[in-house]
Amino acid sequence: MLEKLKEQVLEANLGLPQHHLVTFTWGNVSGIDRDSGLVVIKPSGVEYERLKVGDLVVVDLEGKVVEGHLKPSSDTSTHIVLYKNFKDIGGIVHTHSPWATIWSQATKELPALGTTQADTFYGSVPCTRSLTEEEIKGDYERETGNVIVETFYKNGINPNEIPSVLVSSHGPFAWGKNAKDALHHAVILEEVCKMAYHTLNLNPAIPSMDQHLLDKHYLRKHGAYAYYGQN
Amino acid sequence: MLEKLKEQVLEANLGLPQHHLVTFTWGNVSGIDRDSGLVVIKPSGVEYERLKVGDLVVVDLEGKVVEGHLKPSSDTSTHIVLYKNFKDIGGIVHTHSPWATIWSQATKELPALGTTQADTFYGSVPCTRSLTEEEIKGDYERETGNVIVETFYKNGINPNEIPSVLVSSHGPFAWGKNAKDALHHAVILEEVCKMAYHTLNLNPAIPSMDQHLLDKHYLRKHGAYAYYGQN
Amino acid sequence: MLEKLKEQVLEANLGLPQHHLVTFTWGNVSGIDRDSGLVVIKPSGVEYERLKVGDLVVVDLEGKVVEGHLKPSSDTSTHIVLYKNFKDIGGIVHTHSPWATIWSQATKELPALGTTQADTFYGSVPCTRSLTEEEIKGDYERETGNVIVETFYKNGINPNEIPSVLVSSHGPFAWGKNAKDALHHAVILEEVCKMAYHTLNLNPAIPSMDQHLLDKHYLRKHGAYAYYGQN
Amino acid sequence: MLEKLKEQVLEANLGLPQHHLVTFTWGNVSGIDRDSGLVVIKPSGVEYERLKVGDLVVVDLEGKVVEGHLKPSSDTSTHIVLYKNFKDIGGIVHTHSPWATIWSQATKELPALGTTQADTFYGSVPCTRSLTEEEIKGDYERETGNVIVETFYKNGINPNEIPSVLVSSHGPFAWGKNAKDALHHAVILEEVCKMAYHTLNLNPAIPSMDQHLLDKHYLRKHGAYAYYGQN
Repeated sequence: MLEKLKEQVLEANLGLPQHHLVTFTWGNVSGIDRDSGLVVIKPSGVEYERLKVGDLVVVDLEGKVVEGHLKPSSDTSTHIVLYKNFKDIGGIVHTHSPWATIWSQATKELPALGTTQADTFYGSVPCTRSLTEEEIKGDYERETGNVIVETFYKNGINPNEIPSVLVSSHGPFAWGKNAKDALHHAVILEEVCKMAYHTLNLNPAIPSMDQHLLDKHYLRKHGAYAYYGQN
Repeated sequence: MLEKLKEQVLEANLGLPQHHLVTFTWGNVSGIDRDSGLVVIKPSGVEYERLKVGDLVVVDLEGKVVEGHLKPSSDTSTHIVLYKNFKDIGGIVHTHSPWATIWSQATKELPALGTTQADTFYGSVPCTRSLTEEEIKGDYERETGNVIVETFYKNGINPNEIPSVLVSSHGPFAWGKNAKDALHHAVILEEVCKMAYHTLNLNPAIPSMDQHLLDKHYLRKHGAYAYYGQN
Repeated sequence: MLEKLKEQVLEANLGLPQHHLVTFTWGNVSGIDRDSGLVVIKPSGVEYERLKVGDLVVVDLEGKVVEGHLKPSSDTSTHIVLYKNFKDIGGIVHTHSPWATIWSQATKELPALGTTQADTFYGSVPCTRSLTEEEIKGDYERETGNVIVETFYKNGINPNEIPSVLVSSHGPFAWGKNAKDALHHAVILEEVCKMAYHTLNLNPAIPSMDQHLLDKHYLRKHGAYAYYGQN
Repeated sequence: MLEKLKEQVLEANLGLPQHHLVTFTWGNVSGIDRDSGLVVIKPSGVEYERLKVGDLVVVDLEGKVVEGHLKPSSDTSTHIVLYKNFKDIGGIVHTHSPWATIWSQATKELPALGTTQADTFYGSVPCTRSLTEEEIKGDYERETGNVIVETFYKNGINPNEIPSVLVSSHGPFAWGKNAKDALHHAVILEEVCKMAYHTLNLNPAIPSMDQHLLDKHYLRKHGAYAYYGQN
C-alpha cells in the first residue's frame, strides 16, 4: 500500500539528521497521496537510526490510522490541517532545527534580506500569533495547524510561494510538492534564518531587499519564464 | 560486580564525545545501584578513546573506593551529594559543554523560551549562587553538590522536573533515571542553551514562554496522561 | 577539448562542498583558456554528487555554448564580464557561503582586521552598490558583472591584490590565476568574514589594521621579495 | 637525528587540522631538544595532508638550518625567541584558529571567566601591544617574539602558568613542556576564547571569576598538592 510514497517519506525523514536539522527524534516528515487522501507519516518518538519503511503509519484525513503497528507522530493533526487547506502541497516537514527555532522563539517574521532567500521564498517567512489558552488546552495540535493556515489566509500569503512558517514559541514547518521538496525547503529555511540573524546583527538598519531583485531571483527559478536549472 | 550498570555508565561516558559535549577529558558520567548504594563513575583524567569497563571505579556513598585500580573522578563528591539528596535519580553527567558553560559563566538562569525546552524541562534551569571562600577552600567538590541541592530546595524546584543545573562560573550537571537518561538531558540542555542565547540576542524583550504552552508540552510527554512516543 | 582545464574546473567545483561553501547547488566555478578565449563552467542546477567532467559546459566570451549537452550556469554572463575585464585571472568561484553572504546582505565592505586577511587580501574587500531597477530588469547577470568591475575601477582597486568581492544583497565572487586558486580565495574570504564579524562584535571601536603590518604580511607572500612557502 | 622529537613534532602538527585549528597551512608546531639546543619545526607553506617526518627542518638557536631539504616556517624566528626566553618550555604552536584570532584582532586580553580556563590558565591570557613601524619593517618575526616576551616580563606573568598569548592583530601562540602539551593548550585556548566571547555577550557586566575559585581549580591540577588525574 502506497509503497512508493512510503519510500519517499522514509528517505526524507532520514534526510533530517543528514542535514543536521534534528536532535534525537525532534522532527517528522509526511507525504500525502492526493488520490486516496491518505497520509504517510513518521511514528511518534522513534529514533531515525532504526526507522524502517514498515514503521511508517498511514492515516486518513480524519486522523484515523488505516495501516501501521505504531502510533503516528503526535503532530499528525497539524499535518492534516495543512494538507486540507494547502491543496497543492504533497509533503510536510516539522523540525526544531536551531536557527529556525531561534526565530520562532523570538516570535519574529524572517525578512527577505538577499537572493539566497529569494531563490526559494517569494518574500518574508511569517511567524504565527501565539495560541490562546483555549487553543492550547483544546485540540492543541490541530489548533497549531489552524493558526498556520490563519497566518497565510489573513495576510494573503500564498503557501506555494512561501513554503514555510515559523510557529511562535515552537519551531518551523516546511512543505512542498512532495516530501523531498519539503525537506529541501526546511534546509534552506534553516540556512537563511542563520544568515538573516547575523546580517541584522552586523547591520541593524538594513531594510528588506529590493523588490525588483526579489522578483528577479524568485521568478528566474519559479516563474513562467524560469531559466534556472536544466528544465 | 554491577556489570550491567558499568556497561551503561561506560556507554554514557562514550556518548559525551559522540554528542560533542566534551573537549579532552572535560566530563564524567556516573550511575548508582540504589539497592547496594554503590556508584559507578569514570576515573579521573582518563581519555575517552581508551576508556574500558575495567577502568570504571565503584565507590560507596561515603566516597570510599570499593572496586577499581584507578582514582575516581575528582567530581565524585559532587555526584554523591546529588544521589543522597535527589532520591529518584539513577545517573549523573557533568560536562563543560560550551553553551551550557557560557550560561554558567554568565551566572544566568536559563529561561524557558519555547517548546524544545518545555518537552524536557518544566520551566527555567537555575544557576547556583557563587560559593563562598570557605566553601571553596573547604571540601570544594562536596560544597558544589551542596549548593546545587540548596538551589533546588530553596526555590522549591523539583529535580525530577528540572533535571539539570548551571553551576556558577563552572558548568552544567544533568541527571536522570539512569546514565543514558542523564546524557539525554545533557544533550538537550546544551541545545536549548544555544537556542536561548540567540533568541534573546534577536529579541531581548522576549518574555518566558506562555505557562499553558509549557504545561501542554511538558505534560504531553511526562504527565499522567502523556501521549508522546510509543508507550 | 580543454581536457586539462575541465579536470581543474571539476575538481574546484567538487571543492565547494568539501570546504562547506555550498548548500545544495548554490555555487559554481569556471576556468578560462586565455589562448582560445574559451570558458569551462558548471552546468546550471546540477548536484555536486553527480557532477562529471562530461557535464561541464564550454562557452566562448560571447556566452555561446561551443560544447556540452547541458545549459551552463545561470551566472555565466557574470563570469564572462569578469574574464573580459580582469585580464590576469584564470578562474572564478561564486557561492552563497554563509559568512561572506552575511556581509553581502549587510551591504558592508569587509575591513582588514588582521594578518589572516593580509596574507591574501591587500586591504578591505569591497561590497558593490545595489543594482538599479533597470539593471535588474535588463541583462541581470551581465549587470552583476558590470557592477563588480565598476566597484574595482571607480575605487582604484587592483583585482589581483583583492581577489574577491561582496555583491550587495547577494553573495561573494572570488577569482585567481586558475580555478584552484579562486577556490582557495573563496575559502579564505569565508574564514576572514567570520572572524571580522566577531571581532567587531567584541570590539566595535577597532580600526582597520596598521598599514605597515598589512604591507608586511601581504608582501612577504605576494611581493617581489616574497619569502613565505618553498618558492 | 632527533628522531623521537621529530615524531612528536609531526604528530602535533597533524593534530592542528584534527582539532580544527587551521585552514590550509595556517599554523606550525615546533619542539626543542634542550641538550643540543636544536629546534625541529614545520617547513613553510607545506600542506598537512602530505607532511612527512623527512620534511621537518632542524634549526639551531641562531636560526641556521642544520638539517632538512625545505625552508623552515616563516615564523621560526618567533619560536626561537620564545625558546631562548621561556626556559622551561619544550614545544610551541602557532595558529590562526578562529576564536583566538578574533580576540587577537580585537586586541583584547582574555579574562578568566570560569573553571574551564582556570583548569589550565592561572588567570587571564594577555594580548600584546601593537608592533611599531620600525619593528614591523625590521626583523618582523623576531620582533613578534620579543613583544610576546615583553608582555610577560613587564606584567610579571609566568609563562608556565599562562602558556599562551594573543598577538595583537595577528593570532595566538601556545606552548608547553613539549609539542603535544603545546597543542593541548592551543586547543583549550580556542575553546575558552569561544566561551568567553559569548559569556560577555550574554552578560556584559560579568567580572573576572573569583580568585579563590581560580586558585582552587588551577592548583588542584597544577599545584604541589594536585589531585586531578591519575598521578
